[in-house]
Amino acid sequence: MTAISLITDFGLKDNFVGVMKAVILGINPQARIVDICHGVAPQNILEAAFLLKTSFGYFPKGTLHLVVVDPKVGSERKKIIVKTKDYFFVAPDNGVLWPALKDEKPQAIIEITNQKYFLKPASNTFHGRDIFAPVAAYLSKREPINKFGKKINSINNLELPKIKTSCGSLTGQVIYIDRFGNLVSNIDKEMLHNFINGARFEICIKNKTIKKISDSYCESAEFKPAALIDSFNYLEIAVNCGSAKEYFGADEGDKVTIKRL
Amino acid sequence: MTAISLITDFGLKDNFVGVMKAVILGINPQARIVDICHGVAPQNILEAAFLLKTSFGYFPKGTLHLVVVDPKVGSERKKIIVKTKDYFFVAPDNGVLWPALKDEKPQAIIEITNQKYFLKPASNTFHGRDIFAPVAAYLSKREPINKFGKKINSINNLELPKIKTSCGSLTGQVIYIDRFGNLVSNIDKEMLHNFINGARFEICIKNKTIKKISDSYCESAEFKPAALIDSFNYLEIAVNCGSAKEYFGADEGDKVTIKRL
Amino acid sequence: MTAISLITDFGLKDNFVGVMKAVILGINPQARIVDICHGVAPQNILEAAFLLKTSFGYFPKGTLHLVVVDPKVGSERKKIIVKTKDYFFVAPDNGVLWPALKDEKPQAIIEITNQKYFLKPASNTFHGRDIFAPVAAYLSKREPINKFGKKINSINNLELPKIKTSCGSLTGQVIYIDRFGNLVSNIDKEMLHNFINGARFEICIKNKTIKKISDSYCESAEFKPAALIDSFNYLEIAVNCGSAKEYFGADEGDKVTIKRL
Repeated sequence: MTAISLITDFGLKDNFVGVMKAVILGINPQARIVDICHGVAPQNILEAAFLLKTSFGYFPKGTLHLVVVDPKVGSERKKIIVKTKDYFFVAPDNGVLWPALKDEKPQAIIEITNQKYFLKPASNTFHGRDIFAPVAAYLSKREPINKFGKKINSINNLELPKIKTSCGSLTGQVIYIDRFGNLVSNIDKEMLHNFINGARFEICIKNKTIKKISDSYCESAEFKPAALIDSFNYLEIAVNCGSAKEYFGADEGDKVTIKRL
Repeated sequence: MTAISLITDFGLKDNFVGVMKAVILGINPQARIVDICHGVAPQNILEAAFLLKTSFGYFPKGTLHLVVVDPKVGSERKKIIVKTKDYFFVAPDNGVLWPALKDEKPQAIIEITNQKYFLKPASNTFHGRDIFAPVAAYLSKREPINKFGKKINSINNLELPKIKTSCGSLTGQVIYIDRFGNLVSNIDKEMLHNFINGARFEICIKNKTIKKISDSYCESAEFKPAALIDSFNYLEIAVNCGSAKEYFGADEGDKVTIKRL
Repeated sequence: MTAISLITDFGLKDNFVGVMKAVILGINPQARIVDICHGVAPQNILEAAFLLKTSFGYFPKGTLHLVVVDPKVGSERKKIIVKTKDYFFVAPDNGVLWPALKDEKPQAIIEITNQKYFLKPASNTFHGRDIFAPVAAYLSKREPINKFGKKINSINNLELPKIKTSCGSLTGQVIYIDRFGNLVSNIDKEMLHNFINGARFEICIKNKTIKKISDSYCESAEFKPAALIDSFNYLEIAVNCGSAKEYFGADEGDKVTIKRL
């Protein structure tokens, strides 16, 4: 068994994901396919990159992570396989792998060019089905990666939202909002602790402030906001039994500022 | 093969469910994971309890039912395993198992405390991933339940919406609305038949009345309402080829009254 | 392993799909169940037929395709098994298989009547769980199809949206809109090429025109419309990195006209 995980922006309304799985099964009937999620906002590479980074390490060693969020499908953007110590990654070379691979050093990068592994005729509009799914399926059957194309030396990076620090403040932003309306920032646990360093502080978002880091959602009263380090180690703004997105009227890109007092 | 069924309020937009499956697979690669559903309204224990009660018995004996709807995650609420004659249940002890276990007598109840079976470090905000998924995975590998913690004698119950009867009427309420807009009441087939007992009757909801129980949706004209005993044995108000939710402007909690004439 | 593919209009909010899978697993624990999709609009047979037609051929030979979009559930409409050279199909006989079976000639058609293979008692409102799922499961275990009922000679057809041609124009319509807002027409590649036949042309939709067929979405500027032959060989109107549905204010049923200039 090799597990193949899937992240796409295809949603579940259409047949795109089902057809990709059909192609994988036709090539490797033993493949164990696990949906990470398909609800990435259309063409939102940053969201997919965040979801991959916070998911891939929970999978068994040997898992192949297939990510298809591909606004430039059919253009000259590369299609790549990246092998690391514990995993394989297959994706368009648009930066979507970049954040995950900061944690997991690439051992080999292959540009996928060998049409032997493509469905024929391969469309220009659905490489998920015609190229990425069959390549992932063959790779999951232990086909050597150098058969899929030539080694290349680097992948495209992804421009991540910046963290700004001034003397007394650190400013990040909301980079992801989950189903519950929790606001996930790009400020991670280490950054936060290094900055606060025992001082008193307040966290500002949308002109409201929170003065402590809670240990759990329900440490706040019902329908009251809380800031906490979430289960993926990012600073998150939540509302106990409610939606912080609605409470704060917040959206992706909104600033989250920590001020030392 | 042991099947593990999943009910959560995590939705499918995020990576929560995918990451739980990753953790399960890492521990038990043979586990057969079946999604019951992840669309439970956030923190809605009653909805999850209803979905579990109406689903669990269709699964093969030996199935482990994992339910993670957990508004008090990270607090002192217990985490439990319940063994019955045919199934295992794993969930927070917040009443979510209560309705199912009225039909399926517990043989043993364990409070999960043995951290050996947790992911480390376990977060305070995502016990689905850090505690429930790995416990379910080890349990599905036939780890004896007494290894996970101590036996306890009872679980928390769930306050269910009441049924009220007066001389000539029986009043329940809408407890679930499905994708089609069908209004599921808490009045079950037996209750209904015992109450009507051959008499003429009318069913009232939102100031409208229905005077018979249909055998199928399409017994009514298109876009006309019908009352029927649904496939889970509850009295349901539907609209043929339409949405009863929209037709009646109804919502969860609205009264459904049966009057003997 | 036999794969069983699923198309339903049950959505993923409720437990309908999960319970069908439970029933299948109880009968055939080895079944490999693959969701094509469950987001078909309620009772929309045409949409389900389109999704089946564009999906089934990507599955391995031997796959059993189970389609449950069944507005007449509980009425006298037939329930059928169709065997073709490479596949099995199980569905209500409401035309949903018709478009797929134009490409894949039926070798045998069986009306499902043998209650031995049904859950008992079978409801009148959820044949997906009580009849179609168990029949599919037994069939996937190689139970001979003639055991499920008698052979019949034909299935119901489905009235498909018409294509109209006049001297200088060809008019079809939007038959499907995907998650990205792409507008899929019922004009296929062959029809389009035969009609244009090297001439200059324009494509009209909602009083706007497009003058060429692009090879990929990103051949247009960002947020600009494009017409292309999609990955399932239909003429599709798209907007690069945007939604054609929103751009054109279009809906299913809207006319798509090609004019020779």
